[in-house]
Amino acid sequence: MQDLAPVKWKDDAVEILDQRALPFRVERLRCTSVSQVAEAIRTLAVRGAPAIGIAAAYAIALSVRDCADLRECLERVDAAASLIRSTRPTARNLFWALERVVAAARRARNAKELTESVLEEARRIHDEEIQMDKKLAKLGSELIEDGYSVLTHCNTGELATGGYGSALGVIKAAWEAGKRISVYATETRPLLQGARLTMLELLNAGIPAKLIVDSASGYLMKLGQVNAVIVGADRILADGTTANKIGTYTLALLANHHGIPFYVAAPYSTFDLESKEIAIEFRSEDEVKRFRDLQVAHDQARSWNPAFDVTPPHLITGIVTERGILRPPYTSAIRSTLGNGMANGV
Amino acid sequence: MQDLAPVKWKDDAVEILDQRALPFRVERLRCTSVSQVAEAIRTLAVRGAPAIGIAAAYAIALSVRDCADLRECLERVDAAASLIRSTRPTARNLFWALERVVAAARRARNAKELTESVLEEARRIHDEEIQMDKKLAKLGSELIEDGYSVLTHCNTGELATGGYGSALGVIKAAWEAGKRISVYATETRPLLQGARLTMLELLNAGIPAKLIVDSASGYLMKLGQVNAVIVGADRILADGTTANKIGTYTLALLANHHGIPFYVAAPYSTFDLESKEIAIEFRSEDEVKRFRDLQVAHDQARSWNPAFDVTPPHLITGIVTERGILRPPYTSAIRSTLGNGMANGV
Repeated sequence: MQDLAPVKWKDDAVEILDQRALPFRVERLRCTSVSQVAEAIRTLAVRGAPAIGIAAAYAIALSVRDCADLRECLERVDAAASLIRSTRPTARNLFWALERVVAAARRARNAKELTESVLEEARRIHDEEIQMDKKLAKLGSELIEDGYSVLTHCNTGELATGGYGSALGVIKAAWEAGKRISVYATETRPLLQGARLTMLELLNAGIPAKLIVDSASGYLMKLGQVNAVIVGADRILADGTTANKIGTYTLALLANHHGIPFYVAAPYSTFDLESKEIAIEFRSEDEVKRFRDLQVAHDQARSWNPAFDVTPPHLITGIVTERGILRPPYTSAIRSTLGNGMANGV
Repeated sequence: MQDLAPVKWKDDAVEILDQRALPFRVERLRCTSVSQVAEAIRTLAVRGAPAIGIAAAYAIALSVRDCADLRECLERVDAAASLIRSTRPTARNLFWALERVVAAARRARNAKELTESVLEEARRIHDEEIQMDKKLAKLGSELIEDGYSVLTHCNTGELATGGYGSALGVIKAAWEAGKRISVYATETRPLLQGARLTMLELLNAGIPAKLIVDSASGYLMKLGQVNAVIVGADRILADGTTANKIGTYTLALLANHHGIPFYVAAPYSTFDLESKEIAIEFRSEDEVKRFRDLQVAHDQARSWNPAFDVTPPHLITGIVTERGILRPPYTSAIRSTLGNGMANGV
């Protein structure tokens, strides 16, 4: 089995598995500066909401690793947090992780304590994400029955998370529990996380799977070949409103129309109980006009390229978290299950 | 303006514009044998339901162009029709065109008459398709109001038809009538007819347009940025059931959910009043695993690749034909508008 851990703290640096080269080459980037980590996040060398949260936390640790003065440390932490915050707006986990490590820095009484506690907090976030993944995957696997054909979107496995997966973690846990399931994975244009990453993880896990173009999901459902849809999330609001990879809203509507359950799987680090709206990241027009390095449309063609969309809660059958499977109405379910943890940390 | 006519009869050969090389290179294939035309259809050098009908008709003319014996001519016609029939199962126009030229061959009393009348019938089909395009585009343009933002799928312009377009013809006619419209074109994976061909035609026509990934259409509609959806068709049954490029069914459901009119545009050569079901072509798994020459998924990955899907009539707001805009219930509308023409030819 290949080691596909997306982020590691190693020899005083942040080691990032460059997901842009997958599935063809396994290349690791050794980031020794915050700006290198920021660039890795911005260019999607590391992607997936929980994984970029972990990378963000380690970036702060990186900023202070040789710092001997408390005031300078705090300035570096603020500058690093500000740079990382500017990389990608939609995933909640990135902001959540920054808030935690910045708070740890602020509690320190001297530079040595700050340096240590920031790294400690980043490591804690990393460990917690892995534990949350495993818990939510196990809980969620009960939704997947023996013989099910499951449709998933984008990549939500070990590459996107702490190291096991959210939605794809649920699928893997069901398979590991002995259920004979099969998976349809959408290719997930424009950046092909489904084709490149999810198919790789499913092959690694030995789970029978087929790749489809994004537009084939409606017909697949109409033919009765999907028993459940499960996706990850980049940000979930207090009422269950969910931002996730572009195309998720369409899948939720299609599932609803065909009477197929539609599940979201995400750890509590993805929840945002404060905001009323979600900032959707629009990315370069070139991502649509190209397929990796290959140009596919006329030079002068314009494109419209939102990286995410927003799914309303009434289309979501259940939200799988490490603390249980939430059911509608989500406002009360989220408040009672996650409200305390959000305020106090785990 | 580039000449983008997809098929021509030229110097005793079938000249096919190789659409696989577009939008980057304009290359023409000179086909001097039926098997070359069959290969061009099978590999999508020429595609689009009306265009492959025209290519099929000329292929029969090609099979007999130097034939001096009536019996041998008829044998060649049958063999050629059989080969062309085996290329692609879904588009009605191909079968319709073959039926017409084969019938013309059967009426001939000698080899010379056969050779001439088969070519004449193929040319008549080609001319009729162009006239039908223009008529239906003009009729359909009344559905597109000034200021509309129109979403279309795949390619249905001059490249796909006799030379003007069906759904894209409607859009072009509205623009030429002075309506200030804009277009969103889906890229249409796996073969990117939207990105490569529709965007090229829209740029050529000077119509403001943006390319989107297929999965972005739901979010685009939710944001209120689509006033109408219009697509072509590969086969329309007597009750209005429509086969078209994979993803069409999803767009129809999305439009229905968002209260957006969903139109199909097709000439009468696309209608099949006999069949009860539509054979859907499944194409190579490699089309999904690749993006032109670029591999995007793991070697061992499997895929599921239907080239078309089926949209039920209740999701279709209107069907634009050269004889009028049909409205539900389609069974009676199709019978009264097209029933006679289907039996007798135009």
